Amino acid sequence: TMRVGVLGATGYAGQELVRLLRRHEEVAELVLSSSSVAGQGYEEVYPHWNGQNIGILQDEDVPDLDVLFCALPHGLTASRARGFLDRKIKVIDLGADFRLNSAQVYEEWYKLKHPDVDLLGQAVYGLPELYREKIKGQSLIANPGCYPTATLLALVPLLKEQLLQTEMLVIDAKSGVSGAGRGVSLGNHFSEVNENFKAYGVASHRHTPEIEQELSRAAGQPLTVSFTPHLVPMTRGMLITIYAKVKEGINEADLRNCWLKHYASEQFVHLLPQGTWPQTKFSSGSNHAFLQLTVDRRTGNAVIVSTIDNLMKGAAGQAVQNMNLVVGWPEELGLSGTALWP
Amino acid sequence: TMRVGVLGATGYAGQELVRLLRRHEEVAELVLSSSSVAGQGYEEVYPHWNGQNIGILQDEDVPDLDVLFCALPHGLTASRARGFLDRKIKVIDLGADFRLNSAQVYEEWYKLKHPDVDLLGQAVYGLPELYREKIKGQSLIANPGCYPTATLLALVPLLKEQLLQTEMLVIDAKSGVSGAGRGVSLGNHFSEVNENFKAYGVASHRHTPEIEQELSRAAGQPLTVSFTPHLVPMTRGMLITIYAKVKEGINEADLRNCWLKHYASEQFVHLLPQGTWPQTKFSSGSNHAFLQLTVDRRTGNAVIVSTIDNLMKGAAGQAVQNMNLVVGWPEELGLSGTALWP
Amino acid sequence: TMRVGVLGATGYAGQELVRLLRRHEEVAELVLSSSSVAGQGYEEVYPHWNGQNIGILQDEDVPDLDVLFCALPHGLTASRARGFLDRKIKVIDLGADFRLNSAQVYEEWYKLKHPDVDLLGQAVYGLPELYREKIKGQSLIANPGCYPTATLLALVPLLKEQLLQTEMLVIDAKSGVSGAGRGVSLGNHFSEVNENFKAYGVASHRHTPEIEQELSRAAGQPLTVSFTPHLVPMTRGMLITIYAKVKEGINEADLRNCWLKHYASEQFVHLLPQGTWPQTKFSSGSNHAFLQLTVDRRTGNAVIVSTIDNLMKGAAGQAVQNMNLVVGWPEELGLSGTALWP
Amino acid sequence: TMRVGVLGATGYAGQELVRLLRRHEEVAELVLSSSSVAGQGYEEVYPHWNGQNIGILQDEDVPDLDVLFCALPHGLTASRARGFLDRKIKVIDLGADFRLNSAQVYEEWYKLKHPDVDLLGQAVYGLPELYREKIKGQSLIANPGCYPTATLLALVPLLKEQLLQTEMLVIDAKSGVSGAGRGVSLGNHFSEVNENFKAYGVASHRHTPEIEQELSRAAGQPLTVSFTPHLVPMTRGMLITIYAKVKEGINEADLRNCWLKHYASEQFVHLLPQGTWPQTKFSSGSNHAFLQLTVDRRTGNAVIVSTIDNLMKGAAGQAVQNMNLVVGWPEELGLSGTALWP
Repeated sequence: TMRVGVLGATGYAGQELVRLLRRHEEVAELVLSSSSVAGQGYEEVYPHWNGQNIGILQDEDVPDLDVLFCALPHGLTASRARGFLDRKIKVIDLGADFRLNSAQVYEEWYKLKHPDVDLLGQAVYGLPELYREKIKGQSLIANPGCYPTATLLALVPLLKEQLLQTEMLVIDAKSGVSGAGRGVSLGNHFSEVNENFKAYGVASHRHTPEIEQELSRAAGQPLTVSFTPHLVPMTRGMLITIYAKVKEGINEADLRNCWLKHYASEQFVHLLPQGTWPQTKFSSGSNHAFLQLTVDRRTGNAVIVSTIDNLMKGAAGQAVQNMNLVVGWPEELGLSGTALWP
Repeated sequence: TMRVGVLGATGYAGQELVRLLRRHEEVAELVLSSSSVAGQGYEEVYPHWNGQNIGILQDEDVPDLDVLFCALPHGLTASRARGFLDRKIKVIDLGADFRLNSAQVYEEWYKLKHPDVDLLGQAVYGLPELYREKIKGQSLIANPGCYPTATLLALVPLLKEQLLQTEMLVIDAKSGVSGAGRGVSLGNHFSEVNENFKAYGVASHRHTPEIEQELSRAAGQPLTVSFTPHLVPMTRGMLITIYAKVKEGINEADLRNCWLKHYASEQFVHLLPQGTWPQTKFSSGSNHAFLQLTVDRRTGNAVIVSTIDNLMKGAAGQAVQNMNLVVGWPEELGLSGTALWP
Repeated sequence: TMRVGVLGATGYAGQELVRLLRRHEEVAELVLSSSSVAGQGYEEVYPHWNGQNIGILQDEDVPDLDVLFCALPHGLTASRARGFLDRKIKVIDLGADFRLNSAQVYEEWYKLKHPDVDLLGQAVYGLPELYREKIKGQSLIANPGCYPTATLLALVPLLKEQLLQTEMLVIDAKSGVSGAGRGVSLGNHFSEVNENFKAYGVASHRHTPEIEQELSRAAGQPLTVSFTPHLVPMTRGMLITIYAKVKEGINEADLRNCWLKHYASEQFVHLLPQGTWPQTKFSSGSNHAFLQLTVDRRTGNAVIVSTIDNLMKGAAGQAVQNMNLVVGWPEELGLSGTALWP
Repeated sequence: TMRVGVLGATGYAGQELVRLLRRHEEVAELVLSSSSVAGQGYEEVYPHWNGQNIGILQDEDVPDLDVLFCALPHGLTASRARGFLDRKIKVIDLGADFRLNSAQVYEEWYKLKHPDVDLLGQAVYGLPELYREKIKGQSLIANPGCYPTATLLALVPLLKEQLLQTEMLVIDAKSGVSGAGRGVSLGNHFSEVNENFKAYGVASHRHTPEIEQELSRAAGQPLTVSFTPHLVPMTRGMLITIYAKVKEGINEADLRNCWLKHYASEQFVHLLPQGTWPQTKFSSGSNHAFLQLTVDRRTGNAVIVSTIDNLMKGAAGQAVQNMNLVVGWPEELGLSGTALWP
C-alpha cells in the first residue's frame, strides 16, 4: 500500500480523485492540499464528505509521498514537478503542462513560457489504451485532456491503420459544464447555461494542438483538425462526433474490425452493437468509453461517435488508471463499476 | 381580417401556432381541430389556456376558412390538401408532404407513396428569406423543417455565390427535445434524456434530402451532406454547426460580406458581431435566427453556426410569416418581440 | 404616449422590463441606464437584442421621464426616489425599499437604516388584484416581492373572510434560479445547482416580514408565518405550497367560493378546475397566476398551491401592470399572451 | 458467499440493485428476471452494461436462491412471497405489499385486496436505523418507500422523545423524476417536466398511510400528517421539509441532541453542522441521508430538512443494507462511497 497526495483537491477533478482514491484498496494514506482553503476540513468545502475528517494541507507543504496527483491550473505543475521527482514522488499531472512535446506549441497556445522545458522529454502521455507499455513504471505522466481522450480513443487505431483520409477531419465536440471547473463566471451561471446550447472556443480551443499532436503521430504525418467544442446544459459527460472521408476501398466493416482488434481486451473501451449509438449517460460516474460508427453510403464519409465522462475517463478516472500502471497494480483497481443510471 | 384554422392544434407546433395566432392583429377568428381530443375545451389539454374558452373541433369538420395550417403527421395533409384548395382555403403545411420536389425521394425517405403527386409542382417551399417573392399570394406552402431552416439560412447565400467547396459538407445539428413532439416514448422519457446527450438518426434522418435539395438548388449542382442530428437535454432551441472548405482565394470577410448583403434588410436574421457566437437561448420563443462564422486559418475550413427556436422560426413562427406573405400582410405581423431571457 | 426609463436595465428583471416595454403600445420612448455598463449598447450585454440600437445611459443621468422603473439593489432607490418625485417622475420600485411600512422592520431585516423614512407613508404596495384602487394615479409604487406576490394572491382573500386559522401558517416556497439575479456566485454555478434541490434562507428570508405585514393586514391581526424558500434546478417559475387549518365549519367549497368571488373578473389570476394543480410552466413568460386548493378531510388542513413566473407577475410584469394603473391605461396593456409552452 | 436474485430487474430500482449487487463482495452469483424482456441480454436493455454478459430470466423461473429482491408493482410480490419463503429464500420487497400492518388500510389506499394477509404479521419494516435488531435474520422484509424513509429518519427520534407537537405535522416533499419509474407517460415526458415544477397526489399519495403508521408508532398515539409530494425537474434525489410545533419548553438544542444521540454511531445518517442545509446532490448515487433543523424563534415552529437519493437509501441501497442485516454481513457491505459530485 502507498501514500498518495492530491494538489488542487477542491476543484471538480480533485474532488473526483478523492472519491476514487478513498475507495482504492491500495491507497493507505491520502493527503490533500489546496492553496485556497488550506487548514479547513474537506467537509467544510464539500459537506457531503461529512464525518470523514479529512484535512486540507497548505499547497506548499507536500510531504513525502509515493504518488502525487496535480490538478492545478496550467503552469503551476511544471514549475514544481522537478522538485517532486527529485524526492522520488511519482507525478501524475491532470493539467496541460506536459501533454505537448513542443515547448513552442505550448507557448503559442497557452501564452506562457514553459517553466521546465527539459522535463518535457521525460513525460509520458498517459492514455493507457494507446501507450500502456510506455506508461508502466514511469515517474511523470501527462494525463490527457478530456476532449483529446474521447477523440483519440476513436481515431488513433483508424489512423494508424491508414483507413481514413486526413485532409478534412472534423471533430465536433460536446461537453457538460463541469469541464469548466468550479470557478464561477457568467458563462457558467445557471440561468445563462440552463436551457441553452452554444459553441465556444471556435478554432481556438487549447485541446486542438494536443489532438493534432497525437493524431499526427498515429497517422505518421502532420495533420490538422477542425475542432469545435460546445457546451451542453448538463453537468457531466462528453460526446464527440467525428467526420472523415474513408480511404479508397475501405468500408464500415474495415473500420469496425480495426476497433475490435485494438480494443478486444480493453475493459474500459466498448464498441457498441451496430445501430446502438453512444449516450453520455452510459459513462456517467464510470471510467468507461463507448464507441460507434457508420459509413454513410451516400457521402462516403465515416461518422464516428465517442463518449466518456469528462471527470472520469476524461480526468480523474484515467489518472487513477495511470497510477495503477505506474505503480504496477491491476489497471482497474478502484475503477470498477458501471455508470450511475438514470 | 380573416378566419384561420389549425389542424393538429394540440401538438407542440400546433399549440405554438395557437399562441401566435391569438395575438395576431388580423386573425379575427381562430378554429382549432384535432383528431384525438375533439369536443374538449383547449384548456382541458393545456390548462394554461384557462378562461379563454377555445373549443376543439373534429379534425374532419374543417369549416370555410381563409388560411389553414396543417400540423399533422406526414401523409395526412397531402391526402386532403386538394380538397382544401378547391374550397379556396390557403394551405400552410408544417409537415413534410410538400417539401420535396420529387415523389420518388419522398417515398424513399418516408416509406410512403405520395398521396397527391400532382400537387407537388404547385407547392412553394416556404422559407421567406430565400423565396419571398415566390411565396407571396400562393395557395400551398410547404413550411420547411426545423433543421433545414437553420441550415439553409446559413448556407444558401454562400453556396449561391460559389464561396464554398461542396465536396465535404458537414452539418452537425443539435436540437432540444420539443422537436420530437408530444408523443410519449422511452426516448423522450425525462429520466432517460435529462443529463444525457446523444446522436440519433445518424446518416438516416429525413431532413437530409430536404437539405440536399435546397443546397443543390443554391449551388447549381447536385450535392450531398453529412447530416447528424443530436438531442440536447433542453426543451427548445436548435443549433447547427457547419464545416466546409472555402474555395480558393476566399476568406472570412468574403463569407461575412455575402451574408451581410443577403440579410441586410432581414428583420429575423441576425449576423452577430465578430467573436460573438450564437446560443440557442438568443432565439427562445422568438422568430429570430442568429448566425456566425469564422475561417480557421490553420485548416482553411469555414466553421459556421446558426441557431433558431425549433418551434418558432423552425415551425410555427415561420408558418405565420408565410401566412403573412401569402395573404399580403406585413411579414412581421404577430411575430414581433425578442427571446424570453433568461 | 409616454417616456419611460429603467434603472438597473441589465439585470434579469431589468431585461424583462425592456422586453415588455418595447412592445408596449403607449411607451413612445424607452431610456435605459446602468451603473456597470453605461456607454455600451444593450446588445453588447444581451446579444439577442442585436440590431435594435438601444444605448445604455449612466445611472446618474436620469432625463425627464413620465415613469421610472427602479430595478436596483435595496437601499439605492430609497436614497434617490425623492429627487425623481420632485421632478414629477412616477417611480415604480422593483426593490424592497418601500414595501415595508415600518422603517424599523426594514432595518432589522435588511441591516440598513432606511434612507428616507418619510417617503414610506407615501408609497403604495403595488399588488393590483388587492390594492387596485389605491394604486391608480399614485406616484410611488412598491412593487411586491416574488414570493409575497404568489403567497398573497392565494391567502389574502381567505384571511380577509376569516376562513383560515392563523396559528400555524406554513408557506413552503420553491423558485427557479433566475430569482437570484445575474450576479455570479458558487450558489448559482451551473454544476452546483443543476440536478440539485435545496432549501435556503430557512427562517431568515427577507420576504418574510413583507408576507407577514400583508397577511396581518388581511387577517386584521398580527400573525407570523413559517416561510421556507427552496431553489429548483430550473431558470424561471415559482410555486408556493401553503398549509393552514380551516376555521370551524369551513369546507373546501367555502374557500373556493371566496377565491371565485374575489377573482371572478381578474384576467391574470386563474382558479384552475378542481383536480388540476398548478405547474410553474403554466405561467412561464406570462403575467398569469394559477391557483388551486383542497381541504384534506383526514387532517382538516387546507393545502393551497399558487404559481407565477417570478420575473413576470413576480417582478417586471407586475411592474408594468402597476405602470398601467398609475398612468391610467388599460391594466393589461403590453401584458397580453399566454405562457411559452413547452 | 451467496446467490441472489432480482425480480423486476429492468426498472430503475432493479437496475440500481444490479449496479450495487455486482460490486458486492459477498454476492457470488446474481440472477435477474423480468416479465417483459426475459431472454434478452441485460445490455440490450441497458447498453452501458456492455460486455458483462448478464442474461435475463423469465420472471416465473426463480431458481433456488439465498436472497430475492422483488422490485415489482404492488400486488405482485404478495401473491408469490409465500412460495419463495417456503423454499427458504429470504425476500426483500421493494414494493408496498408488506409495509402496512393493516390489510384494510392497504386495500383502502391501493384499491386492491391484499393477496396474503397472514404474511403481514411476519414482515418486518426494513428501516435499519430504526428497527435494526428486528430486521436481523428475518425472512421477509418490507423495504420502506422513499418518501417515508426520508421522513421517518428525521421525525421518529423526535417523536419518540416527545419533543414535537403532533396536531399539525406538515411534510412538504420534493422528488426527482426517477421515482416515477421507467414507464412512459405524458407526466414524465421530457418537454412537460423539464423547466417545470408541480405538486402531485395532493392529499392522496399512497405513502401517506405508511408515514402515519410509523410516526404514530413512534409517538405512541395515532396521528395524521399533511403530506404533499412535488416533482422536481431533475432525475435523482429527494428532499423533505417538515414543519411542526415544538412542545412547551423544548428548544433547538433539544432536538439536535436527540438526533445526535440516535444517530451518533450511524454511518449512513449525517446531521450537518449548524447552518449547513441539506442538498439532494449530497446523496446522489450514495446511501447517505443528511439532516438539518432549526427552531424559528418567531413562530416556535421546528423546520426540519432531510435528503436522500430516492433510488439508493430510498430504494435499492436500503434494500442491500437490509440484505446485509438479514444475512449477517457488515451492514455497509457494497454500499461504501460518497455521492457523485458534481
